[in-house]
Amino acid sequence: MHTDLVAALDIGGTKIAGALVDGQGRILVRAQRPTPAEAHGDTVMRSVEAVLGELAASPLWERASAVGIGSAGPVDASAGTVSPVNVPGWRDYPLVAGVRAATGGLPVELIGDGVAITAAEHWQGAARGHDNALCMVVSTGVGGGLVLGGRLHPGPTGNTGHIGHISVDLDGDPCPCGSRGCVERIASGPNIARRALANGWLPGPDGDTSAAAVAAAARAGDPVAAASFARAARALAAGIAATATLVEIDIAVVGGGVGRAGEVLFAPLRRALTEYATLSFVRRLVVAPARMGTDAGLVGAAAAALAPRTDQAAAGV
Amino acid sequence: MHTDLVAALDIGGTKIAGALVDGQGRILVRAQRPTPAEAHGDTVMRSVEAVLGELAASPLWERASAVGIGSAGPVDASAGTVSPVNVPGWRDYPLVAGVRAATGGLPVELIGDGVAITAAEHWQGAARGHDNALCMVVSTGVGGGLVLGGRLHPGPTGNTGHIGHISVDLDGDPCPCGSRGCVERIASGPNIARRALANGWLPGPDGDTSAAAVAAAARAGDPVAAASFARAARALAAGIAATATLVEIDIAVVGGGVGRAGEVLFAPLRRALTEYATLSFVRRLVVAPARMGTDAGLVGAAAAALAPRTDQAAAGV
Repeated sequence: MHTDLVAALDIGGTKIAGALVDGQGRILVRAQRPTPAEAHGDTVMRSVEAVLGELAASPLWERASAVGIGSAGPVDASAGTVSPVNVPGWRDYPLVAGVRAATGGLPVELIGDGVAITAAEHWQGAARGHDNALCMVVSTGVGGGLVLGGRLHPGPTGNTGHIGHISVDLDGDPCPCGSRGCVERIASGPNIARRALANGWLPGPDGDTSAAAVAAAARAGDPVAAASFARAARALAAGIAATATLVEIDIAVVGGGVGRAGEVLFAPLRRALTEYATLSFVRRLVVAPARMGTDAGLVGAAAAALAPRTDQAAAGV
Repeated sequence: MHTDLVAALDIGGTKIAGALVDGQGRILVRAQRPTPAEAHGDTVMRSVEAVLGELAASPLWERASAVGIGSAGPVDASAGTVSPVNVPGWRDYPLVAGVRAATGGLPVELIGDGVAITAAEHWQGAARGHDNALCMVVSTGVGGGLVLGGRLHPGPTGNTGHIGHISVDLDGDPCPCGSRGCVERIASGPNIARRALANGWLPGPDGDTSAAAVAAAARAGDPVAAASFARAARALAAGIAATATLVEIDIAVVGGGVGRAGEVLFAPLRRALTEYATLSFVRRLVVAPARMGTDAGLVGAAAAALAPRTDQAAAGV
């Protein structure tokens, strides 16, 4: 019997997605449930079990040798627990133990969702072939992950690359995280829209006040809309430059809904990077749009489940 | 014949120090020359060769199996070159090739000076036993280095942990590096003194306007002097918190002249860290004063020269 597949879970505040994934990152079986985000923690776990049960109903399930989980954070990979900001019923919730029990004892790898998309972009996307990379999701929030020395670097608790909550404006606006002037507080989609509206941008007749609507207005020449994206780009540039200066990345991959705004974001981002990434060893840094689509979380979770065996093979175990 | 020693070089803008160091980090032989910082690059190299020549005159020299260099940065370990900001004659200067030639072909390891002090603090100082650490020098400039996953992490070019030049104030004052609001621009000794003077601090009858004099005034109750240190502490806290949020360090070791100011710096630094290090996985972060003295650069350079062999041993080579 081959055990050449892994099960993958992508757990967010809106949905719980699952898949059986092969060693090339192909998704063979899918399952999905809405996240009962406001429910009791055990009720949320029932939805995870329902997704796993649907996968286990597949004849391919017996080929699965491990489970990879990418979860909204913070996570604690060392304890096997998760505390997603937007799932209040889960605080230090023992997700790994629950998944292990639900799968008859399969090995379980837990990483944060930003680390998961990084694993996917490094495996098959825009960061492929780069030994030192930052991958980001810029959307309702701002998250990320790091590849260092050719490998995913989740860190002791699975949270590294959390660029959304580094301060680039130490006297700036309070952030819900408790700090000030965080990258997310300036560059997330809701903050782009909020700033555009506050500075006089008027939405179209459909009343759409999303960051995508601000992007459309910026493309059509609205200076206030463009300025709000440029401000977000400066915050992202300062954060990306800080990361490069601290750990010598040579590429920053930007995805998520705001990342899909295209040149409205990337043109000012490239300009601002030349202002903040000034030291000789960070000047070669490039930014690139993400290439993996909405399956990035699942593919990255699968990569994490496959990686420990790869590491053992490399070590000759 | 034992080859149980390494030669170490600590190259700064003021002096070039050399030593023969054993596997326990003990300095057995020393040599030193002033750095002819404004001279032609080859003249500076003659001083490095003079230091090496003095070490080679020792009967212990034949036990040296490698050379470790910690140099003022930026360095480029991959190219074997250095471009120290305060040694203008060295720009992409082939220091590694020069040292290899001067030592009859010994293997040479090059790292930045911030990385070198980090190696020393991790080996024998305040970061000992910590698998994920940031070590900093806060002095005329602000530098640093990282330990990740239990090992020194110099990065591809030997410059990681360059915390002095991350921006924590994206609209802040221009920094000589070309960016704005860098940690060094706010927290270095000269900037602490400049800000105190600008805000009305008056030096004593000796006219001493150093950061050490500002620290003494702060200890004596001068509120303007204390406020300048508190501002430096906030910038350091934002930078340390950013580092922890990006790579999950659990200790930040602070040394250098400003680091030696004691509680005038550390008390507001600890307070500010609680404001900027807010996510669950960074709250356990602690700050500690450096323990290695003025030999940290030499001991760390020696550690870098010893480490490749350690890594090979660990890999069973």
